[in-house]
Amino acid sequence: MAFRSVMRPALVFIGFMGAGKSTALSAAREAGLETVEIDALMEEAFGKPIRDAFEEDGEAAFRAREAEVVGSLLEEADGGAIALGGGSVLSERVREALDRHTVVWLQVGADQAWERIARSDRPLATSAEDVARLLGERLPHYEGLADAIVPPGDREVVARAMPSLLALAGMPSGTKMLWAASASGEYPVLVGPGLLGEGEWPLSGRRFCITDTVVGALYAERLEPLAARVAVAPGESAKTMAEAERVLRDLARAGMTREDHVVALGGGVVGDLAGFCARLYQRGVPVVQVPTTLVAQVDSAYGGKTGVDLPEGKNYAGAYHLPAAVMADTSTLATLPAEELAAGFVELLKTGLLAGGELWERARALESLDPESLAPLVFACARFKCEVVAADERDAGLRAVLNLGHTVGHGIEAASGYERYRHGEAIGLGLLAALRLSGVPELREEVESILRHQGLPVALDPAVDVDATLAALERDKKRTAAGVGFVLLSEPGKPRTGELVEPAKVRAAVEELYG
Amino acid sequence: MAFRSVMRPALVFIGFMGAGKSTALSAAREAGLETVEIDALMEEAFGKPIRDAFEEDGEAAFRAREAEVVGSLLEEADGGAIALGGGSVLSERVREALDRHTVVWLQVGADQAWERIARSDRPLATSAEDVARLLGERLPHYEGLADAIVPPGDREVVARAMPSLLALAGMPSGTKMLWAASASGEYPVLVGPGLLGEGEWPLSGRRFCITDTVVGALYAERLEPLAARVAVAPGESAKTMAEAERVLRDLARAGMTREDHVVALGGGVVGDLAGFCARLYQRGVPVVQVPTTLVAQVDSAYGGKTGVDLPEGKNYAGAYHLPAAVMADTSTLATLPAEELAAGFVELLKTGLLAGGELWERARALESLDPESLAPLVFACARFKCEVVAADERDAGLRAVLNLGHTVGHGIEAASGYERYRHGEAIGLGLLAALRLSGVPELREEVESILRHQGLPVALDPAVDVDATLAALERDKKRTAAGVGFVLLSEPGKPRTGELVEPAKVRAAVEELYG
Repeated sequence: MAFRSVMRPALVFIGFMGAGKSTALSAAREAGLETVEIDALMEEAFGKPIRDAFEEDGEAAFRAREAEVVGSLLEEADGGAIALGGGSVLSERVREALDRHTVVWLQVGADQAWERIARSDRPLATSAEDVARLLGERLPHYEGLADAIVPPGDREVVARAMPSLLALAGMPSGTKMLWAASASGEYPVLVGPGLLGEGEWPLSGRRFCITDTVVGALYAERLEPLAARVAVAPGESAKTMAEAERVLRDLARAGMTREDHVVALGGGVVGDLAGFCARLYQRGVPVVQVPTTLVAQVDSAYGGKTGVDLPEGKNYAGAYHLPAAVMADTSTLATLPAEELAAGFVELLKTGLLAGGELWERARALESLDPESLAPLVFACARFKCEVVAADERDAGLRAVLNLGHTVGHGIEAASGYERYRHGEAIGLGLLAALRLSGVPELREEVESILRHQGLPVALDPAVDVDATLAALERDKKRTAAGVGFVLLSEPGKPRTGELVEPAKVRAAVEELYG
Repeated sequence: MAFRSVMRPALVFIGFMGAGKSTALSAAREAGLETVEIDALMEEAFGKPIRDAFEEDGEAAFRAREAEVVGSLLEEADGGAIALGGGSVLSERVREALDRHTVVWLQVGADQAWERIARSDRPLATSAEDVARLLGERLPHYEGLADAIVPPGDREVVARAMPSLLALAGMPSGTKMLWAASASGEYPVLVGPGLLGEGEWPLSGRRFCITDTVVGALYAERLEPLAARVAVAPGESAKTMAEAERVLRDLARAGMTREDHVVALGGGVVGDLAGFCARLYQRGVPVVQVPTTLVAQVDSAYGGKTGVDLPEGKNYAGAYHLPAAVMADTSTLATLPAEELAAGFVELLKTGLLAGGELWERARALESLDPESLAPLVFACARFKCEVVAADERDAGLRAVLNLGHTVGHGIEAASGYERYRHGEAIGLGLLAALRLSGVPELREEVESILRHQGLPVALDPAVDVDATLAALERDKKRTAAGVGFVLLSEPGKPRTGELVEPAKVRAAVEELYG
């Protein structure tokens, strides 16, 4: 009979030794999934304990056999949950067999892994150096295979992420998930094409959509059923206390309660405003961020900074409010105007400069800003941002790196009344000033040429007053009694924060922008 | 020679067995205070171990000797820190000797005390029942003697409270301190006459005072040096998003940074508005609450609820922001208009109804609302409020009891445009409605006569529309899909929350208020 039922994907946990795969398997069992103990299968196949097989037959023979056992298990798996050994991903057959499954990478740092396995009996990892080397070799595989990433956490982290991991199978193909965790909470970040409308909604309760008129017209229908849709005018001008009040009143009149939630559909402005309103409405309701611009998808939707501007300074009224979930549908990038895409690219470039390594290489090499080329970079940037936030949610130190280019950039925005430049355009100019202050002229030149290539401004409009820019910059929120601290960059991947710079040098770096 | 130097007060820790007095003594030593080990002194005086002295000589002889040793120690103490045995406070000589010292009561619950001492060798406490009985006997002494109260906490709680405990010696005589602790933070609450101007300021950094024009004119000078003073109009009309924006802009123009803090000087409206602005200013600066009205001193200054009203509902835009400290100077009550005192008395009465027991007895027996009679009740109400908040900071359950009378009260305020009634007056009417719904007619009658005695309204102005009141009540923030949950009272001290009541009964209880 030719008929064959479609086999369901399994939830497959991958990751290094000590990443917590057996704990994850228990969480899957608790969630009602059938689970397979690979070690038992392997010992049956070998006819002896794994350690003996490894030592008696040698690594090559062991790996070959492992690939057969694990490969056929994955090829035949119909639902359920499986946890792979740390080295299984070295086999091409295994990697191919993983393709139709939901692959969850449990992250663990080298130090933490060594701490956890030091007293166990692992043939390949007998020292901290072994562990670091092996982890380095396997990271690209884990990274390349993962549909979902769960960062290192307590023993319960996979259990808490489980509903989101299970929902991933129902998401459009190509969807990637990151479990974002920081001191005040955890939430799923979903990135992929076609998420809106096709993906499962991450929260129960009624949805109250806050959007702008342009984005709302394009995408709000895909979020139905909506209990209400509140639209603001597009652009930074919506980020005011007065607009926040109008939105809050609309939510109240629409009968929103604390069991409902806000959906922020739009770019950075909508995300900041809607997150702020969600934080304040009846002292706080959840917000699902649905970023539709590049700047929001790579940066602003994550980490919980929300707020509105005062005439005296950008984001001067604000609050932290972590999203309950982020749904970044990269196909929405297709409808963005070219200038908006270019402006968003600046945050991506900034992330590349901060992260260094592969992300910097990919960002500097990006030729065209089409959704297909951007999607994987969006996910990588989201990961970087969430990792920084995880380490420092409340801006005590590390998180300040994200302000690279923003000190001068915010000054330019304030001095030009938030009208002349898009946020990303101003940040691009701010990056050039920051790189000048960093004393890295070649990198500044390269960034200038990248900005120019994407059609972004590399010189400041003479109509923007230099003194007004410097005065606005002096009111920077990061200002302390000692002065304004800049983020400077020694080289890609090597930022330093809180650098006090002589006023004359700041002025020179800003004046240079006038060409 | 007749000259004798003034002896400095010591920091004396009192409390039941297991309250953590030795840990507190270590914290005092860490802070540089000389400490005395009472047990060692006693054993020297007895010439044998304490347990032996207790058993061989009997409790009466032991207590007499203990009183001599501890009494003369306290009489001669010049600074330093001392921790008394749990039963020392039974001696009148000891209690009198404590008068000139700073007495810190370390609280502990009976269960927790028993858990901590069960495996130790305490002659008087050999069962959980013993512990509960003894604790009950001694509580009134601890309570009566305490200048400062530290609730049960982790081992470090006294160390964290130490700067505030040390500062207490420099506060005006009669100042009481409570270390308020809840999930998101801890802060000192200071209550007493003459605190402003005379007391030590609890925070470093520049002070930005938010006040109303009336209170500011009376008391702002006592808070100098102030970096800025921002005044709003007196009354609920200042609790709007527009006023919040104006205040935030004033703070920005005055150059406030994240190292500075807000001082909220005034009643409940100023406290709510200033706390809200502090929460939002550059995503959060600390706020010191300096309540000057009775309603603020007994209730609204504690617990971190902040916010402004929307036309659609009271406190519909808000956030949690625990104060960094509360300084309640009860002498400010002397300048309050009689109606304002009476309105504040309603929250005190509400607290009495919720707490029951002695607080209820004292509240119902209060004849005159003068600062001297009120001061001890203010501290008792602050304690009750902080204990409720400690158990449930974010309104998940227990904290909801504090809304007794507020559901109908808020409805009345909203329906009358926040103009016709003071907050306390509306809550008084709300209390009557809640007691009607609670089915306790005699208690309702007593409360009505108490309200009348204080010149408070007991009937609703016919100009306030009953349907508008009921409609506003339906928009209560505690509303869930199931309806509005009321706080009802079985008897003083026995509230129950989340009670759904038939609309017809609610209407009848509101209509009854029209007389």
